[in-house]
Amino acid sequence: TTYKLLLLPGDGIGPEVMAQVERVVGALGELGIASFETETDLVGGAAIDVHGKPLADETLARADAADAILLGAVGGPKWNGVAYDIRPEAGLLRLRKDLGLFANLRPALCYPALADASALKRELVEGLDIMIVRELTGGVYFGEPKEITVQADGSKRAVDTQVYTTAEIERIAHVAFDLARKRSGRVASAEKHNVMKSGVLWKEVVTKVHAEHYTDVQLEHILADNCAMQLVRRPKQFDVLVTDNLFGDILSDAAAMLTGSLGMLPSASLGAVDARGTRKALYEPVHGSAPDIAGQDIANPLAMIGSLAMCLRYSFGLGEAADLLDGAITAALAGGARTKDIAGAGAKVLGTAGMGEAVIAALRSR
Amino acid sequence: TTYKLLLLPGDGIGPEVMAQVERVVGALGELGIASFETETDLVGGAAIDVHGKPLADETLARADAADAILLGAVGGPKWNGVAYDIRPEAGLLRLRKDLGLFANLRPALCYPALADASALKRELVEGLDIMIVRELTGGVYFGEPKEITVQADGSKRAVDTQVYTTAEIERIAHVAFDLARKRSGRVASAEKHNVMKSGVLWKEVVTKVHAEHYTDVQLEHILADNCAMQLVRRPKQFDVLVTDNLFGDILSDAAAMLTGSLGMLPSASLGAVDARGTRKALYEPVHGSAPDIAGQDIANPLAMIGSLAMCLRYSFGLGEAADLLDGAITAALAGGARTKDIAGAGAKVLGTAGMGEAVIAALRSR
Ligand SMILES: CC(C)[C@H](C(=O)O)[C@@H](O)C(=O)O
Ligand SMILES: CC(C)[C@H](C(=O)O)[C@@H](O)C(=O)O
Repeated sequence: TTYKLLLLPGDGIGPEVMAQVERVVGALGELGIASFETETDLVGGAAIDVHGKPLADETLARADAADAILLGAVGGPKWNGVAYDIRPEAGLLRLRKDLGLFANLRPALCYPALADASALKRELVEGLDIMIVRELTGGVYFGEPKEITVQADGSKRAVDTQVYTTAEIERIAHVAFDLARKRSGRVASAEKHNVMKSGVLWKEVVTKVHAEHYTDVQLEHILADNCAMQLVRRPKQFDVLVTDNLFGDILSDAAAMLTGSLGMLPSASLGAVDARGTRKALYEPVHGSAPDIAGQDIANPLAMIGSLAMCLRYSFGLGEAADLLDGAITAALAGGARTKDIAGAGAKVLGTAGMGEAVIAALRSR
Repeated sequence: TTYKLLLLPGDGIGPEVMAQVERVVGALGELGIASFETETDLVGGAAIDVHGKPLADETLARADAADAILLGAVGGPKWNGVAYDIRPEAGLLRLRKDLGLFANLRPALCYPALADASALKRELVEGLDIMIVRELTGGVYFGEPKEITVQADGSKRAVDTQVYTTAEIERIAHVAFDLARKRSGRVASAEKHNVMKSGVLWKEVVTKVHAEHYTDVQLEHILADNCAMQLVRRPKQFDVLVTDNLFGDILSDAAAMLTGSLGMLPSASLGAVDARGTRKALYEPVHGSAPDIAGQDIANPLAMIGSLAMCLRYSFGLGEAADLLDGAITAALAGGARTKDIAGAGAKVLGTAGMGEAVIAALRSR
């Protein structure tokens, strides 16, 4: 099979790290590991510059037709002045929402070779392997009303609305419990039921799904504030961590940092399995567009390449190919390959392209 | 002057740590440092057990009349089954809201003697001194609608509403900038303007207050997810950090953990200065009621005692007395006094009361 990938490099370092994915895709084909057809389009600020909005309808249609989407990153100071509805992030949010990508999987994995790059003490992060399951199409990101109104006296009033329904919580809970079964069998569910009604419903529904379908999995409820603290204090207590859109955004960034660098962390955003047994899916690094280092060949491409590995695994069921690619990343790191963000004192530092080559070399010599 | 303190020990370890504050209050009086009259009342689960609700009207009236309030902690599994409106936390939230305590000050300070207790590497936290300024009476904690509705098909829909007005953001911004002037002159303001309209307004108003009144202070805007990450990665970059109610809840818990233990961290919740020049104020540790360790004489009372020091400073302008008490805490720690949560390997461990005594001894021998 030849899979159709839509590449959306986006802004900042997006194009640079995506270029490495293209090279890896080429190598995977040459080596007979997996065969892809790629198409490239604009998103975010790059799309604003051309289309006047961050996601053209044709791009959305292409995304809908592709077997999977790989996205770099969106945004940058260049577009700070644009209206809220056409800001770069709106393109990404529309992709997530319109394609129904409700399940965001963010692994936080600490590579042995990198344990010293973490801000945390080595013993706290060595062997760390957390899977954050973040709800991605609900909550305060999309609830209405979401508006700023001007009062009679000229002052303003801003409103955002967090909405969650039983069905939205049920389906993300299933994703988390199913993943836990293939891992160490533990799920922590984070909310603020002591302050938020959506937290009350979240806890209730997760408890019910667990009791009805997954009594073999161990479930723990944790308040989101305590969770943020525990992630720093004793991160290895967590296996699968399921939470809502906003808490997921914050907790996954905190967890990311435990692993040493955001430049290492891939993510998958998955839709429901449709009647034909396929599901929409978008893969992107957890890091942002990092405009301050764009165009300098210093960005770490491993999160982007790792996102391709997740794509092989979750979209195409190519577990072995994914393992090969993940193994090549691990081997490159074990062989001493480092970009600036993960270089310890004295390490030889590679550029973005150099790191891409190191992974491809490891792939070839497997 | 004799100041009137209302003590609300609450639940779990609340009464134990408050008992140490009472001893310290006694010692401050004896030593002629400051003189207090104290009154004790119920809040949280303890109040539910007696009054059927977590804050009796008489208690609120007493809180309103006191010169300052000290609160221990609320909540515990015993009250998990109670209705949302009368849960233990509702008592605390009502105190904050009805007394107008909009500014929550949470210092995250790393004592030199404890730098090794942090999950982070020593060099990242040694000398850490962050002041988190959390908005406390607005946002998703109190916005309406806040409800769960049952749909025709039996499924549920939960809604929470985040609301912020220009005036609410202005006054918390002033608190942050004023504090920064007395510190190192830097403010970071955290929100999600790329996703939330309240974040857009937050950024706009903070920018305006800065430009109009505080150009001598350095202001940085940071996205809340990035902030969570930076707190772990390079915490010493922050001085004053101002943010909304929900982000403040999570970011302050993460920051707390950088200092080694939540058992160390006090907080102040302040209202506006009224016509008579006084302001309502409540002081409480950042830690919770920790029911799992309640009644065992192992809880760390320093956050609660530190809250009394903040009370001296912010409610009564007794900066010197506050310095004496803070100095006694530092001296006790420097002398090797440790509760279980902050004990390194081999340290002699004191109980809750033992730590109280160590602080009082340091106070007497100053
Ligand atoms: C770019 C932004 C809209 C996005 C989010 O908040 O979800 C990002 O922070 C992320 O985590 O993917
Ligand atoms: C107990 C709870 C309601 C409270 C909050 O969420 O504000 C606590 O976590 C805090 O940070 O003071």
